[in-house]
Amino acid sequence: MPASPIRRLTPFADDAKKRGVHVYHLNIGQPDIETPPEMRDRLKAIQEKVLAYSPSNGTPGFVDALLGYYGRTGFALERDQVLATTGGSEAILFAMFAVANEGDDVLVVEPFYTNYSAFATMAGVRLVPITASAENGFHLPGREAFERALTPKTRAVLLCNPGNPTGTVYGRAELDQVARFCRDRNLFLISDEVYREFVYDGLVATSALALPGIEDLVIVVDSLSKRYSACGIRLGCLVTRNEDVYGACFRMAQGRLSPPGIAQAIAVGIGEIPASYTRNVVVEYQKRRDILYEGLGKIPGVFLRKPEGAFYFIARMPVSDSDDFARFLLADFSHEGRTVMVAPAAGFYATPGLGRNEVRIAYVLNCDDLRRSVEVLGAALDAYGTQPAAAASRSASA
Amino acid sequence: MPASPIRRLTPFADDAKKRGVHVYHLNIGQPDIETPPEMRDRLKAIQEKVLAYSPSNGTPGFVDALLGYYGRTGFALERDQVLATTGGSEAILFAMFAVANEGDDVLVVEPFYTNYSAFATMAGVRLVPITASAENGFHLPGREAFERALTPKTRAVLLCNPGNPTGTVYGRAELDQVARFCRDRNLFLISDEVYREFVYDGLVATSALALPGIEDLVIVVDSLSKRYSACGIRLGCLVTRNEDVYGACFRMAQGRLSPPGIAQAIAVGIGEIPASYTRNVVVEYQKRRDILYEGLGKIPGVFLRKPEGAFYFIARMPVSDSDDFARFLLADFSHEGRTVMVAPAAGFYATPGLGRNEVRIAYVLNCDDLRRSVEVLGAALDAYGTQPAAAASRSASA
Repeated sequence: MPASPIRRLTPFADDAKKRGVHVYHLNIGQPDIETPPEMRDRLKAIQEKVLAYSPSNGTPGFVDALLGYYGRTGFALERDQVLATTGGSEAILFAMFAVANEGDDVLVVEPFYTNYSAFATMAGVRLVPITASAENGFHLPGREAFERALTPKTRAVLLCNPGNPTGTVYGRAELDQVARFCRDRNLFLISDEVYREFVYDGLVATSALALPGIEDLVIVVDSLSKRYSACGIRLGCLVTRNEDVYGACFRMAQGRLSPPGIAQAIAVGIGEIPASYTRNVVVEYQKRRDILYEGLGKIPGVFLRKPEGAFYFIARMPVSDSDDFARFLLADFSHEGRTVMVAPAAGFYATPGLGRNEVRIAYVLNCDDLRRSVEVLGAALDAYGTQPAAAASRSASA
Repeated sequence: MPASPIRRLTPFADDAKKRGVHVYHLNIGQPDIETPPEMRDRLKAIQEKVLAYSPSNGTPGFVDALLGYYGRTGFALERDQVLATTGGSEAILFAMFAVANEGDDVLVVEPFYTNYSAFATMAGVRLVPITASAENGFHLPGREAFERALTPKTRAVLLCNPGNPTGTVYGRAELDQVARFCRDRNLFLISDEVYREFVYDGLVATSALALPGIEDLVIVVDSLSKRYSACGIRLGCLVTRNEDVYGACFRMAQGRLSPPGIAQAIAVGIGEIPASYTRNVVVEYQKRRDILYEGLGKIPGVFLRKPEGAFYFIARMPVSDSDDFARFLLADFSHEGRTVMVAPAAGFYATPGLGRNEVRIAYVLNCDDLRRSVEVLGAALDAYGTQPAAAASRSASA
């Protein structure tokens, strides 16, 4: 079980703060957006005197709220196709256990969400990476790359769309290609769609639920965390139209008794959140993306395609070791009393050596802070470039 | 992954209710006791506008509250020895993953809490049962039974004390025996102590944390669910003084990001709950146990030793198939418009064939309901005894 590569930098950030340096956190996916009042108000309304177990698959009210959400999203689902989980995290864990045995393979497009590795380790699953490239904005490689990665032990393809850490939104054609591959090779498609609404420039993310011919093979991982800026309530769900998969996940759900109860009482409120909430959030994130994309584009040596969704992207930096650069930012640098924390991208790759010159940036700060972050990053790259000796010695001791 | 043996009876209970029969639920561990107001009041006080992730190991406030609790219980623990988990369930899961690899063995005394099997299946661990007997109140078998069960792949002993489903409270001598066994054989001792306070007749449960010579080998699984009648908030913790175990569990905790957030805000209140809350709860449960123990003792053919703790016990019934009897109670019987739901005990044994003439009874109903439940059970056994043909035909079609 590997240590979280992002959190490894935390002590350096803590030290910087102790020195009075303000740290802009571009490294984490904790949104600053307010949780909708339609959810928060329900806290005050809870009257239960016994905070009791809920059903393993979620309270009827919460499952109804989820079915309502999927209905509005264009998918008519049944009660026994949507299983409430403790965050999207648990949905990923259940999905891996449901589709694979110890020693089986799951194909995943890298760079990918780091915690997939943690769940794969628990499920005894080997994640087999298919590498996407910065040059085409981390869109899906062609079918031949998927075929090459196939082994007799491959059980599933795992995608995140819109993508963390890439910000890539897969188009219908590339999803159709994956769907055909899964159908031809009888593989499950685990589709992590927790950023479904976070798409910009008028794009719409295609859910794996919409792909024809693989209805039985699709498992959607979903979460309220980002959609409603409610990461702390730890609620998500797993969606499948495959009875056996639902049954296997339901039995795991019984084992852990129930998802968080108060959280579900709050989450019943999602049906009352006006569509304008999400629209406004998307407008805000698009503005933030634009600030970063335009700002970083002006820094010599920084490369990224315009991110299309989620609130992350991977940017190539003019450095040879982004882990060292990230430490430099926290330990050895500040610009007018400020610095930024970024996530070195190597941790998002399974293939050793990849991502060494890339960082993941999350834009969960307000526009002013993001503008200042770009300024800090530019100044830091200037300063870092002139300190090769220091960088070399840090690398040697790392 | 096996289906929960208790929940398999649920459709029969639903049908009985539809027929207007009142069902006394002696089958579940959901207490009817009120969650302390010191916790519930905190719900109304939550002001956060962003329901954000908490640290993976728990909020500082919640970890402090846990340290305070252990301090009052007699154990001075450090912050990096107590990991907040999503219920005791997650603590068991983490413990199994931390101590064993796929294919390893964990020794467990049967009958045991059914969900251990679910977590063992996920961790790829084989649970090797050591059978305790009703005759001596399910106390621990002698060391030779543990030695016989040992294999080169044995990594840990898993105990529940006070015991679900047995209600047994292990004495210091038998715990010392297990401690010596674990020390001699270098095995971890996973001790599920979620019922720690639920002990009667002036007994005190000994925590595995108090056992000398195996400080590094002890992993305590704990939960707020029963102690504060707060099953729905899904909060517990894992306690270990072994740095490596803590590290492994912490990395799993990072993978799932954080325990439920609102729940932790509520749980900070546990430090303010007066000692009288637990005292009153224990007095109430002892009264309930006495009603059941005395009442069932008068029913011919029913056998049990006096339960010492938790709020369950295993009773031997004058039936050859308690699964069939449990279905009979729900499907074919009522007494003055009432029946009871019990948990057939076979599901609490790993050894096939054991527990067929036993049921687990939980006493989470008020005293009047329990008295009526005893009456119903007595009448049901009378009626069931006279219907061998029906029982046989039901068994044949099962």
